[in-house]
Amino acid sequence: MSDLPKRIRIHEEGPREGFQIEPGPIATEDKVRFCEALAETGLTEVQCVSFVDPRRVPGMADAVDVAQAIQQKPGVHYTAIALNLKGYERAVQTPLHITGGLQMSASNTFSIHNTNKDNAETLVEQRRQLGFFRERGIPVDSAIVMTAFGCNFEGAIAPETVRDCVAALLELADAFGITLERVRLADTVGWASPLQVQRVVGAVRERWPDLPLSLHLHDTRGTGLANALVALQMGIADFDSSCAGLGGCPFAGHKGAAGNICTEDLVFMAHEMGIETGIDLDALIECARMIETIVGHPLPGKVMHGGSLTRYRTPVAAGAAA
Amino acid sequence: MSDLPKRIRIHEEGPREGFQIEPGPIATEDKVRFCEALAETGLTEVQCVSFVDPRRVPGMADAVDVAQAIQQKPGVHYTAIALNLKGYERAVQTPLHITGGLQMSASNTFSIHNTNKDNAETLVEQRRQLGFFRERGIPVDSAIVMTAFGCNFEGAIAPETVRDCVAALLELADAFGITLERVRLADTVGWASPLQVQRVVGAVRERWPDLPLSLHLHDTRGTGLANALVALQMGIADFDSSCAGLGGCPFAGHKGAAGNICTEDLVFMAHEMGIETGIDLDALIECARMIETIVGHPLPGKVMHGGSLTRYRTPVAAGAAA
Repeated sequence: MSDLPKRIRIHEEGPREGFQIEPGPIATEDKVRFCEALAETGLTEVQCVSFVDPRRVPGMADAVDVAQAIQQKPGVHYTAIALNLKGYERAVQTPLHITGGLQMSASNTFSIHNTNKDNAETLVEQRRQLGFFRERGIPVDSAIVMTAFGCNFEGAIAPETVRDCVAALLELADAFGITLERVRLADTVGWASPLQVQRVVGAVRERWPDLPLSLHLHDTRGTGLANALVALQMGIADFDSSCAGLGGCPFAGHKGAAGNICTEDLVFMAHEMGIETGIDLDALIECARMIETIVGHPLPGKVMHGGSLTRYRTPVAAGAAA
Repeated sequence: MSDLPKRIRIHEEGPREGFQIEPGPIATEDKVRFCEALAETGLTEVQCVSFVDPRRVPGMADAVDVAQAIQQKPGVHYTAIALNLKGYERAVQTPLHITGGLQMSASNTFSIHNTNKDNAETLVEQRRQLGFFRERGIPVDSAIVMTAFGCNFEGAIAPETVRDCVAALLELADAFGITLERVRLADTVGWASPLQVQRVVGAVRERWPDLPLSLHLHDTRGTGLANALVALQMGIADFDSSCAGLGGCPFAGHKGAAGNICTEDLVFMAHEMGIETGIDLDALIECARMIETIVGHPLPGKVMHGGSLTRYRTPVAAGAAA
């Protein structure tokens, strides 16, 4: 495991994932409390809300209120997503850390179903958005390739297809004088296996050995942390994840079937492997338990239920084991 | 991933794990139906029941009835466990495939808490049991080292300690002229991380390169399949697992916190990596859904909720992705 990174960076997406999908109404003050607690764990990036049409996503109707109420801790980026220019207009009026991003799907069919635009049209739209970001002074720091590991419409995705998407996005960034801090490869619909992660990351790495890659993994089919492990073995040091495993399909959410990989489980695995995260695992577990109480049903995170190993690792116990 | 095995063998423990832990009463006929359905998936080993004191484990009160009612499919081993000679006396009167096993805990303290015997006393007891097995013609085919990756009493377990346990068990087997088909390393209390698996398996492998090792992993802290992945990368080809992730702590079971690794999730991962299991994943998913209906609450398996990828992999879809 010699390519393991010494330290990883985690972009916490639990609040945004959870608030948009949980059936319940969640009180604005609970949302704020959760975001603030996450920022106390050592996480440096917390995605709080999405600026979307509240008729489509009722749980985000109070996005501006949440954004304004959070007492920000210095050194922490409180992020958000917006899906279109109208969303960005709302987002930039809040105190959140709003950045622009480039995006593309490795599956043309997914793109058409999702946005009504094929990949060529998506690139045209991206240019228009980049113009808007420049005009408004919104920094652009990342790009994402969606359905990078498989697609419910197109099936398996060839690693070369992902590589071509990255090339297109890098070219676009270059045309606008943008240096990307990270390029995310997203397992949007939960197809990734360890082998597929190895192939796709390998294909991109081979072409751009120094490009900072980030993985956005879902745990739809149970392989989430195994996929993350392979990525760690390849030196990937940047992950999106979700406290308590919040998120996923609104209809299967209570079964914990399809959310992002769980932040505290990822942190547990990293720490056990000697990889630093800068995060206090026990404090993060408390956040997971807090949000489980708030949403009122079991969430899929494991270490939040199994507990950390901290309490067993007293000096006396360690001596007894030797 | 060049050391990946071409094929793995899975010992299904879901029925035994589930029936002993589920709060519910489960009808004998449902237990039988579940065991029979599992045997139709291609699984060749199904652990059906445990012969334990029904006052301590009420869910196993009908163990003999279940064992006798199962319509056995040729080529499938229907196994069971017994914890003492009294249990073995009951077990051998059923049509199940009863084998004896050697066991030891890598944690002396765990052993004392669990069985009231330290490791030296455990070895004496094992000799007594081996005499009984020989007398009754019960074949002995495996050994297990419990708490091989960590212990709630002793904390971290040194890989050398596990190696010493394996040495003691092999010596004992040798004294009785027994060749072990497999030696199980068990993460009894859910401490394993990928790094710890690598270290412990590495220590045992270094000493006995050709000894067939098997892993018994729990998913207490979310790293279950990642631990299995590292084992696969080291060529381990034999795993215990539990359909739907049945099992775990009776008090946290409904949260899916502490069961064995989930069989169909393991099978999914293996197949996606080109590793054969001989198991029909979709049939196994149906078994998982059957038992979820029987127990009446969500079970922790992921692919049973997310679904397999079979339906997306039509020739047309594959063509579109190329």
